[in-house]
Amino acid sequence: MEEKKISLPVIKRLPRYYRYLAELLDNQVTRISSKELSQRMNITASQIRQDLNNFGCFGQQGYGYNVEFLYNEIRKILGLDEAYNLVIVGAGNIGQALVNYATFERRGFKIIGIFDANPRIIGVSIKELEVMDVQLLGEFIQKNKVDIGVLTLPKGKAIEVSEIFISNKVTALWNFTNTDLNAPPHVCIENVHLTDSLMTLCYKFNETKKTQS
Amino acid sequence: MEEKKISLPVIKRLPRYYRYLAELLDNQVTRISSKELSQRMNITASQIRQDLNNFGCFGQQGYGYNVEFLYNEIRKILGLDEAYNLVIVGAGNIGQALVNYATFERRGFKIIGIFDANPRIIGVSIKELEVMDVQLLGEFIQKNKVDIGVLTLPKGKAIEVSEIFISNKVTALWNFTNTDLNAPPHVCIENVHLTDSLMTLCYKFNETKKTQS
Repeated sequence: MEEKKISLPVIKRLPRYYRYLAELLDNQVTRISSKELSQRMNITASQIRQDLNNFGCFGQQGYGYNVEFLYNEIRKILGLDEAYNLVIVGAGNIGQALVNYATFERRGFKIIGIFDANPRIIGVSIKELEVMDVQLLGEFIQKNKVDIGVLTLPKGKAIEVSEIFISNKVTALWNFTNTDLNAPPHVCIENVHLTDSLMTLCYKFNETKKTQS
Repeated sequence: MEEKKISLPVIKRLPRYYRYLAELLDNQVTRISSKELSQRMNITASQIRQDLNNFGCFGQQGYGYNVEFLYNEIRKILGLDEAYNLVIVGAGNIGQALVNYATFERRGFKIIGIFDANPRIIGVSIKELEVMDVQLLGEFIQKNKVDIGVLTLPKGKAIEVSEIFISNKVTALWNFTNTDLNAPPHVCIENVHLTDSLMTLCYKFNETKKTQS
């Protein structure tokens, strides 16, 4: 397979393909045409063909896609054939939600530690994890294999904590704080900005109202 | 101002501009050049000029942008000069996190009801809101002004609940369930798919590792 740069919108759609293929597999569907997949996913069939062609030739004329094969290929492309260790900083509602989210573990994402700065939360157990003092974060990373750092703390401390991760060679950060992190280019960041998302919805809502009226 | 269709990437960046301008205002900064804004936001100055030109002429040659004016304009464009009532279905960690998120209320988003199907959670208070039985959702919407429906429930019931919102004329849905909703075109949906986001991070992480090695 030729190495080429895949555009961000394509990458962003891959997890969605993966999700749909997983559902098909669960329902014992073994093969699917791009037309049928297109109807289910609400993407044009030609878009699907284009997207998947980025990664090699998966489909066969007149046969469609072999669901399991395609699922496994996308799995590999996304890097989900490996396991990842996550550490969460911020044991508030979002942090707790992530610990309690069973899907992650099934996908190979294991949460191995959760930290907080609040003495009233430190020591409390969430599932089987005891919340640790954020002062010990650097030490913990040095002693354990940590692949992904998760920031679910208030934005005021976000940069400081991201620097602890980065200086300890954690190069993937999942950022739920309402701020952008300034990280060196070798660090990957994926943001979940809830307020931004809500504002985007608000904009769409008003635009739709205008068209309706 | 001429009405034209704004592209989705521009719309997605608007809340980010809004966030930065709010910070500038908090720090008593009254004007800013596109160059300076560009350095802070890590977007090129020409991108900023292009983005903002979509909505009219905000900048002045040699002066830059008036922060408060620009803030207020983007506020209006996003529709944040109005208030919105939200109803949440699913009082798990994510639902609770949203109720506890003070920022929303400051931005004009008011959560007026939270529902769940679990009898052990119904009746419990989160902040000042008592969790109601999801059976009463339709009735509640009919009696109250509900602008945005928030889905923070398990994906199995997501479609059913979205249909209650839609049939009761709620046309904006904020979807946290790990599934896509099939809604008619007059309904706006904004998805927060956490697993997709984590998989995207995972992909970027592996790509970066390849370039480094």
